[in-house]
Amino acid sequence: MPQSPFRERLASAMDSADSLICVGLDPQPNRTAADEILSFNTRVIEATADLVCAYKPQSAFYEVAGELGWRALRDTIGAIRRVAPHAFVILDAKRNDIGNTAEAYARAAFDWFGADALTVNPYLGGDAVAPFLQRPDRGAFALCRTSNPGAGDLQSLRVGEGEPLYLSVASLARGWAANNHDNLGLVVGATWPDELAQVRARCPDMPILLPGVGAQGGDLEASVAAGVDGVGRGLLVSASRSVIYAGDEEDIRAAARDLRAAANAAKPANISS
Amino acid sequence: MPQSPFRERLASAMDSADSLICVGLDPQPNRTAADEILSFNTRVIEATADLVCAYKPQSAFYEVAGELGWRALRDTIGAIRRVAPHAFVILDAKRNDIGNTAEAYARAAFDWFGADALTVNPYLGGDAVAPFLQRPDRGAFALCRTSNPGAGDLQSLRVGEGEPLYLSVASLARGWAANNHDNLGLVVGATWPDELAQVRARCPDMPILLPGVGAQGGDLEASVAAGVDGVGRGLLVSASRSVIYAGDEEDIRAAARDLRAAANAAKPANISS
Repeated sequence: MPQSPFRERLASAMDSADSLICVGLDPQPNRTAADEILSFNTRVIEATADLVCAYKPQSAFYEVAGELGWRALRDTIGAIRRVAPHAFVILDAKRNDIGNTAEAYARAAFDWFGADALTVNPYLGGDAVAPFLQRPDRGAFALCRTSNPGAGDLQSLRVGEGEPLYLSVASLARGWAANNHDNLGLVVGATWPDELAQVRARCPDMPILLPGVGAQGGDLEASVAAGVDGVGRGLLVSASRSVIYAGDEEDIRAAARDLRAAANAAKPANISS
Repeated sequence: MPQSPFRERLASAMDSADSLICVGLDPQPNRTAADEILSFNTRVIEATADLVCAYKPQSAFYEVAGELGWRALRDTIGAIRRVAPHAFVILDAKRNDIGNTAEAYARAAFDWFGADALTVNPYLGGDAVAPFLQRPDRGAFALCRTSNPGAGDLQSLRVGEGEPLYLSVASLARGWAANNHDNLGLVVGATWPDELAQVRARCPDMPILLPGVGAQGGDLEASVAAGVDGVGRGLLVSASRSVIYAGDEEDIRAAARDLRAAANAAKPANISS
């Protein structure tokens, strides 16, 4: 089956850098001043451009800096396009709303900011996710199993015949992807490798965004082994603080390089890379 | 039991205007230009100040206007504080994220924008909602049963002993409120009056934000009857397009006045107002 434009773009970004690594551009308010966000990010992008397949700015850290931050977010995505044109850009905004409101969020993410994808929350159902899936070359990643300690409060509730909610969400999302442009992925935290394996078994082909490596202590090796698809791709290993605050340019570069190597080494042996 | 500062503030806003009405400040991108958002909103606020208990700007319609919109959102909340100082301000942003990221969203909503509350998505669990509940005089409204047609995709899944997920969310949220500063409410769409009655029975005291009246066709009378608390308060009846695009100042004022009267008339007869 030919891949969708969205998944072609993602696979090509992975192949270009031989990398599953996504760097989270999350300037912490207590460490990076609002008017230094763009230069801070540009330094990270320049240090890592050839080592990563994607960048993932976290919207909250720009919103908290007000209009200055909002502008810096747009300019950061512009800097990615110039310095790392192969890279996929995921706006981590976990947006969710109904009908014409979701459409406005999609226009903000894709048109004003220029992201390739954004993260979305599935709680409102398929008709609220659909507005993010109307363009074949753009798409979304729906939260499935998040990396935080309390993720199970809702996500592990047993539904239907007894499976946890996050698996039902994975199945629903697979249907939403098929009903649109095969441009929806899932978010599964690296802190839950067993759950990741179940999601991958349920959705063999969907891209999975994997936060929680690094500062959150997720298990990189187990997650990569459980999370890549049949051709050793389909998984975006996202790290933020452990890379962007690693030190000077050389330290940042070394952190991204080491992570790329560790992730590639953790692919199951029977996969042809 | 004495009310929390958050709920005191909300009750006082309702009493001041003898009103359950919340006006959604949702400037539609195709009807209101980015640089006219503030003046558009100010006209609405001036026309309705004494008739409503709250205003609810929808973040998406400001985000889509870029940094200009972001600034207009902050200035809109400033205009509410000047023109309608009694009014409660809910930023409808449906935010959700983990730990320090949720903290950044909370700071953006409460410090940069100056809102009293924001809407949040419960899918990530209690530890991800807690950062929004750390200030006794500010708080959040968690999505419970949303107004859109596909709301049931997740929210009506049967969990545990067979109750729908949204009722489990209502119970969880009641616990989260109790574990913090009694500063969490729920969002239930006016398109589902039967579900609203179930939520109210489960959570007799929690504030409920009720979108879906007006353009979405929710049932005002049935929703008010089912949704007010034991003293005829605790319900925020939110309307947007049907008020803000009603016409000139007089038309806007008339729309808000009629809605206030209809909501007050729909309170159960045994409630002392």
